Amino acid sequence: MNFLFRKELNDLVPYKPGKPIEYVMKEFGLTNVIKLASNENPLGCSEKVKQALTKALDNLHIYPDGNSTDLRQALGRKFNIDVSKVITSSGSDEMVDILAKVFINHGDEVIMADLTFPRYITTTKMMGGVPVIVPLKNFTHDIKGMQNAVTEKTKMIWVCNPNNPTGTMVPTSEIIDLLENVSEDIIVVLDEAYREYVTRDDYMLDSERLLDKYPNLVILRTFSKAYGIAALRVGYTLAHEDIISNINKVRGPFNVNSLAQVAALAALEDQDFIKESFNVNKSGKEYLYKEFDSMGLEYALSETNHIYVNVNKDAFEVFDKLQREGVIIRPIKDTFIRVSIGTMEENKIFIEKLRKVLNI
Amino acid sequence: MNFLFRKELNDLVPYKPGKPIEYVMKEFGLTNVIKLASNENPLGCSEKVKQALTKALDNLHIYPDGNSTDLRQALGRKFNIDVSKVITSSGSDEMVDILAKVFINHGDEVIMADLTFPRYITTTKMMGGVPVIVPLKNFTHDIKGMQNAVTEKTKMIWVCNPNNPTGTMVPTSEIIDLLENVSEDIIVVLDEAYREYVTRDDYMLDSERLLDKYPNLVILRTFSKAYGIAALRVGYTLAHEDIISNINKVRGPFNVNSLAQVAALAALEDQDFIKESFNVNKSGKEYLYKEFDSMGLEYALSETNHIYVNVNKDAFEVFDKLQREGVIIRPIKDTFIRVSIGTMEENKIFIEKLRKVLNI
Repeated sequence: MNFLFRKELNDLVPYKPGKPIEYVMKEFGLTNVIKLASNENPLGCSEKVKQALTKALDNLHIYPDGNSTDLRQALGRKFNIDVSKVITSSGSDEMVDILAKVFINHGDEVIMADLTFPRYITTTKMMGGVPVIVPLKNFTHDIKGMQNAVTEKTKMIWVCNPNNPTGTMVPTSEIIDLLENVSEDIIVVLDEAYREYVTRDDYMLDSERLLDKYPNLVILRTFSKAYGIAALRVGYTLAHEDIISNINKVRGPFNVNSLAQVAALAALEDQDFIKESFNVNKSGKEYLYKEFDSMGLEYALSETNHIYVNVNKDAFEVFDKLQREGVIIRPIKDTFIRVSIGTMEENKIFIEKLRKVLNI
Repeated sequence: MNFLFRKELNDLVPYKPGKPIEYVMKEFGLTNVIKLASNENPLGCSEKVKQALTKALDNLHIYPDGNSTDLRQALGRKFNIDVSKVITSSGSDEMVDILAKVFINHGDEVIMADLTFPRYITTTKMMGGVPVIVPLKNFTHDIKGMQNAVTEKTKMIWVCNPNNPTGTMVPTSEIIDLLENVSEDIIVVLDEAYREYVTRDDYMLDSERLLDKYPNLVILRTFSKAYGIAALRVGYTLAHEDIISNINKVRGPFNVNSLAQVAALAALEDQDFIKESFNVNKSGKEYLYKEFDSMGLEYALSETNHIYVNVNKDAFEVFDKLQREGVIIRPIKDTFIRVSIGTMEENKIFIEKLRKVLNI
């Protein structure tokens, strides 16, 4: 019945998420499995989230506030930005899909890096857009190369900053250079899912300050990483109010569920937890760098909670062997894996198992 | 910056959800407000849901199982259908959007009733499809009229059964007649959000039995109505496995959040709660019919948890006056409102206030 489906779907493949821990345990008869595959916060989330959720378990029969009013207001206050420029979504995932529906016409070109977050290309193709792939340079977005790829058909440019899966970042100067040099009718999206983990001071932590000058800028952020509520699916987007109102036209009316709104609001208020997460991640990163160095493994310097590392053997084979040892990482391509930075205990187990699997 | 957005969005308007109760209280200085506007279950949800959620508040940092494995398996068992024919979504809302992305090409015609659930038309237009509107007959889907509206451009037919907002249903014989008389390259979607409330025995409660014979049939159901977990956004879809696999290509990888999956699984297991909800709804409906009769108000016979009633005055004016009295209903059009059936106490307050507002 293939003729029934939109032809744009022909070469799309469903996203393959990692197996849940319980399934890996069952499959390989393991009693202890650590998952360093999905860039989740190894500290969990703020205790305040659980407290807030416990109080919010009544009235589940009532539809969510479709405007996420309280959460959007809190975000507006935190970033000193008018609430008309703030919108929430069911994770950044959903916003990637929504932006495609808002902007991408058949034949429009969408510039993105290779490698980067895979949903950009899927949603572009879904809408009949043409992905224009600009290779990374030294594991990092090649912003000049992306500018050179602009044609009169270009509609959108995706910059995952810092980047998933390589962990690298684009400095403020290059972001501004990009915005200065592309026409205002090209949407520039900064996906800042990992911003809370950045250590370098040439990263633009307050990119929302650029919105007034560049109405074609869209900023995506999330509660799934440092805030530690990936289970609940909450992302938020900052953009010009005309963009927000078009997003409102195509999004589902109740796209962020009630408990997700409650959890995100509580998570936002506990900035101590974010600081702790940052510190644990930084120590873990330094430990892993040291170990990779001593093993002679090449890796990209990371401004995120994951490291892109060359294990010098087929990544899928290493993934499989590590899984049998009770450690789940993400094989990316060729000899490169992506490992999420865990607690120090998890990092040590990972290194022990990696040494075993690689015979180093 | 209007030129930036896809032109298909031009005549779309954002969905306007009802105001949350707290906002109505604040705005009108009310201490007690009842909401009969969104067809929510006035009994709440099963106690088992809350118990299950309380136990599920750890590991919120872990991404959801993107395949909703446990929930899909439970649905497969309940309906005696292979799990490859079952998929979940963030409410039926999301599936309406996904189906548009899977099936609707630019210029494809999509047949639907007027009045029916508004997301069908929004998502059709969003994808550049052409809505073909077939008026209701006697508040009910005109299935013959819909068949007559089929052209060589028809791609999809939406039947909300029973219908929102009129509450009316299409009997089994007409559903089968429709499936027999349209070509297999036209997708027929039955949106059965209100199926658990149907009292008539000529309703096809086991429409999933038709899937083997009609691979172009798609069935949408939800946990937002009788199951009482609208806050959590869970719907499910039954269809041919080829349709399911194309849905998997375009849906978000983690579209149903972890707590939503836990809640739906617990809700599904408490069928006593569904029976009780059915009974309370049936008594409430009979009470409201009797009162409308005594007030001389015309209404459509409902197989849902809401009634479409002619208040013989401007619906928006009546809505506004009722709101000031602490009762929120949904004005639909002209002199018609939709009122959700509440608990008997709520129904009585509604009738008291309606009599006051209408001077009857």
